[in-house]
Amino acid sequence: MAPIQNARVLFGSIPKTFPIPGETTLYDTTQTIDLETEPLNGGFLVKTLVLSLDPFLRMRMRDPSVKSYLNPFQIGAPLDGWGIGVVLRSETTGVEAGKYVYGVTISHQEYTVYPELGYLQILETHPGLSLAAYVTATGMPGQTAYAGWKEYSDAKPGEVAFVTSGAGAVGTLVIQLAKQAGMKVIASAGSEEKVKFMQSIGADVAFNYKTTDTGAVLEKEGPIDVFWDNVGGDIADVAIEFSAHKARYLACGSISGLNTGHQGVKNFHQIIRKALHVHGVLVLDLLPKYQEEFYATIPPKLASGELKYSEDVSRGLNTVGDVFVGVLKGTAKPVVIVADGW
Amino acid sequence: MAPIQNARVLFGSIPKTFPIPGETTLYDTTQTIDLETEPLNGGFLVKTLVLSLDPFLRMRMRDPSVKSYLNPFQIGAPLDGWGIGVVLRSETTGVEAGKYVYGVTISHQEYTVYPELGYLQILETHPGLSLAAYVTATGMPGQTAYAGWKEYSDAKPGEVAFVTSGAGAVGTLVIQLAKQAGMKVIASAGSEEKVKFMQSIGADVAFNYKTTDTGAVLEKEGPIDVFWDNVGGDIADVAIEFSAHKARYLACGSISGLNTGHQGVKNFHQIIRKALHVHGVLVLDLLPKYQEEFYATIPPKLASGELKYSEDVSRGLNTVGDVFVGVLKGTAKPVVIVADGW
Repeated sequence: MAPIQNARVLFGSIPKTFPIPGETTLYDTTQTIDLETEPLNGGFLVKTLVLSLDPFLRMRMRDPSVKSYLNPFQIGAPLDGWGIGVVLRSETTGVEAGKYVYGVTISHQEYTVYPELGYLQILETHPGLSLAAYVTATGMPGQTAYAGWKEYSDAKPGEVAFVTSGAGAVGTLVIQLAKQAGMKVIASAGSEEKVKFMQSIGADVAFNYKTTDTGAVLEKEGPIDVFWDNVGGDIADVAIEFSAHKARYLACGSISGLNTGHQGVKNFHQIIRKALHVHGVLVLDLLPKYQEEFYATIPPKLASGELKYSEDVSRGLNTVGDVFVGVLKGTAKPVVIVADGW
Repeated sequence: MAPIQNARVLFGSIPKTFPIPGETTLYDTTQTIDLETEPLNGGFLVKTLVLSLDPFLRMRMRDPSVKSYLNPFQIGAPLDGWGIGVVLRSETTGVEAGKYVYGVTISHQEYTVYPELGYLQILETHPGLSLAAYVTATGMPGQTAYAGWKEYSDAKPGEVAFVTSGAGAVGTLVIQLAKQAGMKVIASAGSEEKVKFMQSIGADVAFNYKTTDTGAVLEKEGPIDVFWDNVGGDIADVAIEFSAHKARYLACGSISGLNTGHQGVKNFHQIIRKALHVHGVLVLDLLPKYQEEFYATIPPKLASGELKYSEDVSRGLNTVGDVFVGVLKGTAKPVVIVADGW
């Protein structure tokens, strides 16, 4: 079999604010691969099927001298992140051809030889779930929502929850968990389409924060007892302003500061006078406690339709650059289908 | 008996930054009172013994149109706050002459007729404790330290605690509770004298934040597992920077922002990546759970000397204006002995 194209998305340069496709990220088609003869050296060859362009990737697009808990991307090398692939050939025990692998180190290229599983795991599939579900509702975002909610929300029927980025993979499950807990749910997102989606999954009050004043909504519909924040920045200040006494603030994301710098929380002093509880949600800390429960309850409910998830995806590795900017600006969903090898 | 002077401290005007004695607070000696004939109208006459000039009083020195959980002071009327007095005459059942009353509504004047107990309570005294102890170590500050620490610190032996305003009434008990829990204790305050005091009550690392770089201390002695913050502002950002994974941040005061405006917390996004827990400590929420335990354990230990407290006080109602500025600037202790009527 002749070599075929192995397209890649390379890290071109460090973005100053938002990434620029064609400059900070480069879609490259110069490389080829012979799928039958490419040496494996004990590893396995994977065809990339799905990538998730999560906001945290922006934190890896930085100067390597800046310390972080996340590795920086290397200029000229492909990006990598959450994704799914199917094994084409393997010299690794337990990673047979035909199996699916899932994890945070899936390379942004069509075909990749991995020397070992490392942080990847074999993906167990559930009948009735689409490809997108495995990097959203049953993947890290869904697990984050589930474990964080169970650990910190202390949700009580009749209380009010406010969820930012409510149409994202995390927010989607949080909205539904809050409704199941008997709460009134307020949810925000950045487009009318997302507002409709949030309403469709049960949000009592859904609004577009770009066209509606968040403070006015919260003043009317709040105060908030549980604040699930995927955004940070201004909206966190407003949410604290309209928080109830003893409210729980689950800080899960600060996407607003990734491109333009973190501005901090001005209303921090209100945490004292309202006796608020703020919890940084890191799923890896919570997973040991909740993983079994999660897999036992969530995938079956997603498959049966009792819980909903977004199937909004983009197609093609060449869309990665644009889609990622859209994710950071709140106008695109992070899931890219690279190939339908299912 | 002829009328005698009844000196008062009046609220003169709203301070722009720090209060100005003689302008925003006025020591007034124009009023007199006849202790034998002053009508009680069912209430009781109290001689003021002790006042505590706590930083929160600054929040009451504001424009009444600004909403707060604390009542604003009235221009031309005496200040009031935590204090102790002795009952001279009474027409109120259960508030007999000779009893001591304690609470947050003690007027800043030598003699006051209170129409009813209201938020005041009869003070039960403990042998071996000085007047100062009742508004510090066994009063609201001590109760705040005890209840907040028990509820939120999750202290474990060998962990590291950092306490700001460690020589204050709250910090003094927090340092000792942390040591009792087997922690290494770092403590900061604003003078060499306070540093010595913090060392004397057991702080392993005590430093003057005005002459020593907090970040350098925490980088060397941290990371911090428990951060008890009485200050807020810059130092909170530094503490978050040097916090350990899953650290607990007990936010008890934001004195730094009372006079010059709250600047917020710039490192808020680190709360997520370090999975921090931030708790606003409001003693009134926690008191029902811990009050009995507190009174059973803390006053006897203070009386026996097993726990220490500061006996640093000022004397005379005429010192209130200056002392309060000193409290806000970190150069004075809040306790003013108005009279030794013990």
